[in-house]
Amino acid sequence: MKIYADNAATTRVSQSALNAMLPYFTEEYGNPSSLHTVGQRANEAMTSARERVAACLNCKPSEIYFTGGGSEADNQAIISAAYFGARKGKKHLISTAFEHHAVLHTLKKLEKEGFTVDLLDVHENGIVTPEQVAAAITDDTALVTIMYANNEIGSIQPIKEIGAVCREKGVIFHTDAVQAAGHLHIDVQDQHIDMLSMAGHKFHGPKGVGVLYCKNGIPLVNVIEGGAQERGKRGGTENIPGIMGLAQALEDACATIDENAARLIPLRDKLIAGLEEIPHSILNGDRVHRLPGNVNFCFEGIEGESMLLLLDDKGICASSGSACTSGSLDPSHVLLAIGRVHDIAHGSLRLSIGEDITEEQIDYLIKSVKEVVEYLRSMSPFWRDLENGTRKHII
Amino acid sequence: MKIYADNAATTRVSQSALNAMLPYFTEEYGNPSSLHTVGQRANEAMTSARERVAACLNCKPSEIYFTGGGSEADNQAIISAAYFGARKGKKHLISTAFEHHAVLHTLKKLEKEGFTVDLLDVHENGIVTPEQVAAAITDDTALVTIMYANNEIGSIQPIKEIGAVCREKGVIFHTDAVQAAGHLHIDVQDQHIDMLSMAGHKFHGPKGVGVLYCKNGIPLVNVIEGGAQERGKRGGTENIPGIMGLAQALEDACATIDENAARLIPLRDKLIAGLEEIPHSILNGDRVHRLPGNVNFCFEGIEGESMLLLLDDKGICASSGSACTSGSLDPSHVLLAIGRVHDIAHGSLRLSIGEDITEEQIDYLIKSVKEVVEYLRSMSPFWRDLENGTRKHII
Repeated sequence: MKIYADNAATTRVSQSALNAMLPYFTEEYGNPSSLHTVGQRANEAMTSARERVAACLNCKPSEIYFTGGGSEADNQAIISAAYFGARKGKKHLISTAFEHHAVLHTLKKLEKEGFTVDLLDVHENGIVTPEQVAAAITDDTALVTIMYANNEIGSIQPIKEIGAVCREKGVIFHTDAVQAAGHLHIDVQDQHIDMLSMAGHKFHGPKGVGVLYCKNGIPLVNVIEGGAQERGKRGGTENIPGIMGLAQALEDACATIDENAARLIPLRDKLIAGLEEIPHSILNGDRVHRLPGNVNFCFEGIEGESMLLLLDDKGICASSGSACTSGSLDPSHVLLAIGRVHDIAHGSLRLSIGEDITEEQIDYLIKSVKEVVEYLRSMSPFWRDLENGTRKHII
Repeated sequence: MKIYADNAATTRVSQSALNAMLPYFTEEYGNPSSLHTVGQRANEAMTSARERVAACLNCKPSEIYFTGGGSEADNQAIISAAYFGARKGKKHLISTAFEHHAVLHTLKKLEKEGFTVDLLDVHENGIVTPEQVAAAITDDTALVTIMYANNEIGSIQPIKEIGAVCREKGVIFHTDAVQAAGHLHIDVQDQHIDMLSMAGHKFHGPKGVGVLYCKNGIPLVNVIEGGAQERGKRGGTENIPGIMGLAQALEDACATIDENAARLIPLRDKLIAGLEEIPHSILNGDRVHRLPGNVNFCFEGIEGESMLLLLDDKGICASSGSACTSGSLDPSHVLLAIGRVHDIAHGSLRLSIGEDITEEQIDYLIKSVKEVVEYLRSMSPFWRDLENGTRKHII
């Protein structure tokens, strides 16, 4: 059996999104900045894509900027809000300890430029509260940036409530919605979101294209200087096939959020229940406020990478956390942020299931993970110490 | 007859490049950072693409960074070299007055940060000499950035000689090769190039993907902060389909540079000769050191935009200059840089012909441009003044 359970890392491009892209490679290949018919047809396509993306977020098309991906959108949002604040003497930025590195590293860069950054603690369930945000905001605060749903543990933040706090205090609110877009309902007006980032490839659109929503009135700073594209805010010939694929995938995903969730959540919960039967295991992230496709566990006495390789042998594509940090020997900063100790955090497993998962596959996942954990523990001197009482169990 | 003569703005994706991309949308859609088989297959594909691109430039694969386009590569190269220089107290940057805005605007940003920028004058033929570069370099110079071939007037710079001057003086040399890559032979070792930018969509690869070549030893500064992708120098999930398309297109283009040039240059020169028959016209850019597909003229008494619309009616896609600045009412900074006065610069036409152009199409282009120029002049009070001597001809 082959199961791709790494949809949080990237997704398969849907046939619908690919079909939306194809004409723009070899037929309608114009540069949208060109004045001639071929260019103008590309421009019209892009305009329509912008309108469709805006409709999915409930914002104006003029508030949508196409970027080269979610990371670029995060960088541009945060830098822009920070510099806008600095012009008014506000140099305080608020975020959380478990953001994606596109956010954390951008904040680190701004810290070197003289901004002060507060990273809020995250509760054990992987959630930051509006009260924490309210308490952290000062008269100097330029920006609050908090992810919509965590990429590793899937916990969904109270975005609307956090947005309301920020709006009330007059602070710009950005959310990295890379994991949420297409999977959860987003309404930037209702949720008081000023800036938002997303990436096409997380909802069956193509890689290499993203969206930055930026509420009118917040001046964007260029991350990429160049021509007059994207109203002068992002240089470079627009990636029309990518943009068309993203718009189609987002529209498709947004139209099926409820039905996908209705189907996925019981399967996800069955998977969680099955894995909880493994002794000395613990679920990471909130049980309820959780992405429909996300399951994340720590297993005591296990090394994440070995688990992945053995699962791969069984035809299962999984991850220990974010793909963006794989190869790193450090335990996940997300798991440390929710209070997992190093030894436990090293034994993490993320299964991010897709909309087409079957109950039979869920059963196979449970069975396979159980076998792998048992096998690895049987080989581990560390586990023997735990079992014979030389070492104490943590979970 | 339909003729796409705007290949400098963007090109049609070749079937070969599209075929190289297709499997990576819906079959091999893994994230190359993922440890499982699907991810590792994507990673292997990317490794092979990197090797193939490196082979086309005669550099090491570890010197190739995939970006979201040519503009991003330009930004990153220039910022990195500037900051590297600044660490050694060198804050002087040299470029030319007719670079692409991805270069000029990045330099402007650095100027605001305290760097000094010298923009070399460009000779009337659109060429900057190594002697000018040598004379401009001081002990404070951190970077020389000069485009390989100009995007509007097609003039090819003496890159190897400029590179030799920079190498001798120990100054980093970057070239924006967006118009040159795939059309002219590039050998970064032989030509003493330290950094180079290119964009897939200028040589029948896809939009939204580019390459930055950066010689080992020059530390890159991130333009996009994020995960550990591209050895930590460019955050964001890699655009594997785009990378595969770019590599294939570049390889195809590099294999056919000589045969394409042999075919195109006589046709280009026939087009130039035909348009020179139009009275009060002038060729922009060097006659010999010129991109095989580039033709650029100024016609006195003509407004560029009207010319484009009438040519479009005749099925001809052309441009007045760079697509990236279209919509702007200012005359081309490139034409001003080579000494064209405002009145003349407004009447510019760029025809950038593709490899599949036929002699019959060249004849049709000549005939059509002649008709359009004649028609527009017959309608123009400005032209009447020139003809009856109230106003003096400039060309």
